[in-house]
Amino acid sequence: LVPRLRPFTSTIFAEMTALAVRTGSINLGQGFPDTDGPEGMLAAAKDALYGGANQYPPGPGIPELREAVARHRARYGIDYDPDTEILVTAGATEAITAALLALTEPGDEVIVIEPYYDSYAAAVAMAGATRRVVPLAPGGTDGHGRFLLDVDALRAAVGPATRAILINSPHNPTGTVFGTAELSAIAELCVRHDLIAITDEVYEHLVFDGAEHRPLATFPGMRSRTVTVSSAGKTFNCTGWKIGWVCSTPELVAAVKAAKQFMTFVSGGPLQPAVAYALDHELAWVDGLRDSLAAKRDRLGAGLTEAGFTVHPSLGTYFVCADVRPLGFTDAAQLAWQLPERIGVVAVPVSVFTDHPEQWRHLLRFAFCKRDEVLDEAIERLRKLA
Amino acid sequence: LVPRLRPFTSTIFAEMTALAVRTGSINLGQGFPDTDGPEGMLAAAKDALYGGANQYPPGPGIPELREAVARHRARYGIDYDPDTEILVTAGATEAITAALLALTEPGDEVIVIEPYYDSYAAAVAMAGATRRVVPLAPGGTDGHGRFLLDVDALRAAVGPATRAILINSPHNPTGTVFGTAELSAIAELCVRHDLIAITDEVYEHLVFDGAEHRPLATFPGMRSRTVTVSSAGKTFNCTGWKIGWVCSTPELVAAVKAAKQFMTFVSGGPLQPAVAYALDHELAWVDGLRDSLAAKRDRLGAGLTEAGFTVHPSLGTYFVCADVRPLGFTDAAQLAWQLPERIGVVAVPVSVFTDHPEQWRHLLRFAFCKRDEVLDEAIERLRKLA
Ligand SMILES: CSCCC(=O)C(=O)O
Ligand SMILES: CSCCC(=O)C(=O)O
Repeated sequence: LVPRLRPFTSTIFAEMTALAVRTGSINLGQGFPDTDGPEGMLAAAKDALYGGANQYPPGPGIPELREAVARHRARYGIDYDPDTEILVTAGATEAITAALLALTEPGDEVIVIEPYYDSYAAAVAMAGATRRVVPLAPGGTDGHGRFLLDVDALRAAVGPATRAILINSPHNPTGTVFGTAELSAIAELCVRHDLIAITDEVYEHLVFDGAEHRPLATFPGMRSRTVTVSSAGKTFNCTGWKIGWVCSTPELVAAVKAAKQFMTFVSGGPLQPAVAYALDHELAWVDGLRDSLAAKRDRLGAGLTEAGFTVHPSLGTYFVCADVRPLGFTDAAQLAWQLPERIGVVAVPVSVFTDHPEQWRHLLRFAFCKRDEVLDEAIERLRKLA
Repeated sequence: LVPRLRPFTSTIFAEMTALAVRTGSINLGQGFPDTDGPEGMLAAAKDALYGGANQYPPGPGIPELREAVARHRARYGIDYDPDTEILVTAGATEAITAALLALTEPGDEVIVIEPYYDSYAAAVAMAGATRRVVPLAPGGTDGHGRFLLDVDALRAAVGPATRAILINSPHNPTGTVFGTAELSAIAELCVRHDLIAITDEVYEHLVFDGAEHRPLATFPGMRSRTVTVSSAGKTFNCTGWKIGWVCSTPELVAAVKAAKQFMTFVSGGPLQPAVAYALDHELAWVDGLRDSLAAKRDRLGAGLTEAGFTVHPSLGTYFVCADVRPLGFTDAAQLAWQLPERIGVVAVPVSVFTDHPEQWRHLLRFAFCKRDEVLDEAIERLRKLA
């Protein structure tokens, strides 16, 4: 293995899911739902399978899917030309890695918000670029409030080598949803310093309590410098399909395509028409999913609180973060490795998503995208920790 | 776009297929079949779609598929441990690019046989390594025989910076199938100079006239230094599914996985069980596919000969190469761009697969993996060239 990839031999998700399987634990580690997506989408996939969609789709993705993505983006008030401004990818992971491989190189710095989804660091390293992390900070009066972007720290991190900034909102692992103030500050900074923004918006529909997802590309000056990334997995409960997309300018999309076409060429032939169908016809189903996830968040949050954790608010995604210190633990990473054997529950330590494990060692991330009975059983087990 | 990717903004396949669609031409450019794979495999995919296979498969691929790949490799007399020595990928493209990103870096040289499949050069560039091409040479008494590996040129190309050698047999675009002599020479060289071999064996089942595919990993000293790559697309007529795999040592597989997991993480959830089924149950169907492709090769070859081309022998793959000079043309690349408008046929100039277009400018590559009536209509049109 080449030196640049040596820090990245495994992913926490693969490790934790393997641990869950090995110990027969409830897996609140890797974020994936345990129920299927809308029936109409599955039927569309079946029809595609029997309808001649089994050979290479076009390099940029099938036109029906690119057009459906354009209609979906238009709901936010942004128009993209399906022919030149949209590219279908093997999930958001391929989109983000391709964007970094295409747009950054040795000598470039990429700003990443900490804690960060693990593939970001690996993708920056694959491109030979350098990551520069800017932390989220817990705000609020009790010291356990919502995680907020430290805009001053972000400003201070921009320098002459900064080429791009990677923004994930709704934010995994914290459940933070950036508001207008934070997004405006990011946008101003990008415009002032001529930065490219790469936005990971895969949880765009999974926002709660009236929080609103606002794509960074809708902010002044950002349409032309934002590589917007999203995918079907979380919106339609089909995380294993790995159908994602990039929306940007023709120039930026062409650049991402240059890398992407030699990473997978294309993928998911018979699944692409099904996602096109879902984007056009199943958003009402997604409203139901969102409401059910908000209730699951409350259910797991209440259970964690009763079990003795201090739970940080989550306004979006599949995840809540919980502080283990009230239970008398100091190291959540150590605890995460013991939990499966001790009580049969898997969670992910937030410190693995950071460059500063000491600052984040008290937090565990729990996924709440599971059936109620699974959450209830997990809560039952977690109460044994007290 | 970063400089290292500037030479690779498009792929010839995407361009040629787009041209075929735009001009309504018969597409003998990009290699994909126009009929579906075995019914049992499609049924298995449908069952998976309705059987809960829609969330993230395990990072290395589902165990059933890794076990089926192990059984399939055992038919060649090589054993791989499905747990540590097999990795499922988004087709062979991801496997090869991940292998190069994981195993080579700036300063390393990678030997590539010319003409070469286009993603090889781009993937070597993404890794920051340098490609070193070794040409195939047409052998035989008439100067238009089978393309042979120039073993002396290969020996001469190995130097202190050589890290890996990329071998594609059955060979796209020439249809060459390396024999024991060539493979032995490659193996000896790899062992002597401690090189890693990456083998692209996606056409392993599509060999004709009694030619035999022998995996390089079966040669002395090669099991431990070969990254064997193959995929389902060409074997089971499902090129759009993009389910491929890597077989190698635990160390090399772990290295490839380190890059792969941040390129796509996983892919094709509900398609993986279907490919597992096909590997175990549909090899008799593949025998029929192979026989039908041999007949198609003969059909198109005869038509091209009648139309005035000189046709090179093809012992495998989907492709034949034809010399345009007997028809009075000197530049096959120029001709390829005119063919769609002139006669409604798309073919690929072989020179795009090379670093030496002048030496290869007389050849067109035609795909014969099409229904007989499509081939017949193409032949009808090609006869108008004379
Ligand atoms: C790509 S596997 C991880 C799924 C996920 O987004 C998460 O658990 O954070
Ligand atoms: C991956 S698209 C190209 C298909 C193919 O293998 C070819 O035409 O050479």
